[in-house]
Amino acid sequence: MTARVAISLGDPCGIGPEVVALALADGRVRAAIAPLLFGDRGALAEAARLRGVPLPGELREVTHLAPSERVPGRPSGDGAGAGAAALAYVDAAIDAVRSGLAEAICTAPLSKHRVALRAPGFAGHTEHLADRFGAQVAMMLSGPRLRVVLATNHLALAEVPRRLAPQKIAFVIGLAHRELRDRFGISDPRIAVCGLNPHAGDGGLFGDEEARLVAPAVAKARAEGIRVEGPLAADGLFPRAVKGAFDAVVALYHDQGLIPAKLLDFRETVNVTLGLPRPRTSPDHGTADDIAGQGVADPEPMVQALLLAARLARPGTPG
Amino acid sequence: MTARVAISLGDPCGIGPEVVALALADGRVRAAIAPLLFGDRGALAEAARLRGVPLPGELREVTHLAPSERVPGRPSGDGAGAGAAALAYVDAAIDAVRSGLAEAICTAPLSKHRVALRAPGFAGHTEHLADRFGAQVAMMLSGPRLRVVLATNHLALAEVPRRLAPQKIAFVIGLAHRELRDRFGISDPRIAVCGLNPHAGDGGLFGDEEARLVAPAVAKARAEGIRVEGPLAADGLFPRAVKGAFDAVVALYHDQGLIPAKLLDFRETVNVTLGLPRPRTSPDHGTADDIAGQGVADPEPMVQALLLAARLARPGTPG
Repeated sequence: MTARVAISLGDPCGIGPEVVALALADGRVRAAIAPLLFGDRGALAEAARLRGVPLPGELREVTHLAPSERVPGRPSGDGAGAGAAALAYVDAAIDAVRSGLAEAICTAPLSKHRVALRAPGFAGHTEHLADRFGAQVAMMLSGPRLRVVLATNHLALAEVPRRLAPQKIAFVIGLAHRELRDRFGISDPRIAVCGLNPHAGDGGLFGDEEARLVAPAVAKARAEGIRVEGPLAADGLFPRAVKGAFDAVVALYHDQGLIPAKLLDFRETVNVTLGLPRPRTSPDHGTADDIAGQGVADPEPMVQALLLAARLARPGTPG
Repeated sequence: MTARVAISLGDPCGIGPEVVALALADGRVRAAIAPLLFGDRGALAEAARLRGVPLPGELREVTHLAPSERVPGRPSGDGAGAGAAALAYVDAAIDAVRSGLAEAICTAPLSKHRVALRAPGFAGHTEHLADRFGAQVAMMLSGPRLRVVLATNHLALAEVPRRLAPQKIAFVIGLAHRELRDRFGISDPRIAVCGLNPHAGDGGLFGDEEARLVAPAVAKARAEGIRVEGPLAADGLFPRAVKGAFDAVVALYHDQGLIPAKLLDFRETVNVTLGLPRPRTSPDHGTADDIAGQGVADPEPMVQALLLAARLARPGTPG
């Protein structure tokens, strides 16, 4: 049986409509999911024609934009209209999940800056979903060789040592453990936690955050029966994780996790929000305005995001 | 013609003697370098016998350790004797280069902690070489797909934003440019500089170090005619560098550079000290006490370090 996935079309002027139209024509996707697509019929039809695929039949039209408001790569005016439309698609997808119409959410890319023009303070999908569901969440990047979970995300590097706390790190370890077990179907997941400093501080030579912040979090998680190791030197840890030593790595800040995740298998690496009542995935790229409408955007990241949404919604099914 | 390379044997109780003995028996190495090896005959002979290769004939004996002082994996006492021996080999290799006997240095791994027992404050090969040559240096990791140069190295992460300065970053860009051109033989090298914060600060949303510290350094280097781009978001930059967009990436702190470098081609990635009057290389692994003497240490990183030392000493030669 296929999983019902609510899909937001993304910014109508980005590559979202193209990659969604292509992904929904993909045989792997059609076999795995029953899509509920929220967006704009004109934007979708234009994209389907451009890429030579049939118009997906599952659209719930949320906006009805004038052609001038959905020109690929060229949002009209300051882009606030395109941003507001993209946010409306996400909210409709959230409502679909809340009302039981769908079992998972998959979001095509939007422009944070354009959304924030009408929705001041909008910081991204992940934060918006946390807000709407009243949930404490964490971001995972899940690829074929590496899964990374971030303990902090869009935060200046100088703030990271001040904002990390043992409770926060322990929460992220526990959340990763639960979702790997309950949604990814890994019965006793092995988790590793990065150190903050070079060589994880080298026994206190470069910084004390490992002893002060990370070790207590790891000890707490261990006491709860979680298989977790750390703090480990990040540069040595990722090659071990890729060889299969761990099911997920907890990175303490954005670049520590995203540099290895994006370097390895960019096309197949999916952004997953952990901590929501239902799974949410997205491709890990932006609106790519520079190539929107040129017929070259790669749908594979969107395909992978849709397939993973289906798998996480139905942990028992193969895929 | 072969390049004359001064080689230090490394900690006599680590894997240094094994990987040096194996590397010096390797046909690629023998074709490219005329070695001047500084170490301990007993440690080397034992390692050569263990790995079934002939005893290299080019040894300059610096110590004559008792068998109990060179047991692989088990340094006697607190290890201070093994540390002092390893440092003496490095100093002898430095002297060989200073007196014109050799054109480059290649160092096998030592234990910083064991050296520091007799030489308080010893922070590693790179810092020691800078000191002995009175040079301002930077560390590069050079692999087949990626070269990374560090603007800061063994420094607590919380210190990084405070210790970076435009002058320092500009110096590292200039140094990378000069050595890529003069030693690596790249006529007009393309260099990229990472941002410090997520998404390189995203226009000032997360931190101001990009505008305050990195952009002025890049502007200064550009004004000097260097082809350099930055600050760029690090997670997006490394995949581009791997695809060939840049000849080297300047990373602002240890893990930002070492995570991608070690993840990609660990066996072929060589540590290079930039800024010395003569090239210095080393394999990018430690003494690996846990596997020393077991006959399993991989000599390939040492082979690559020796080959690169030879190439950097003679920029005109193929290899």
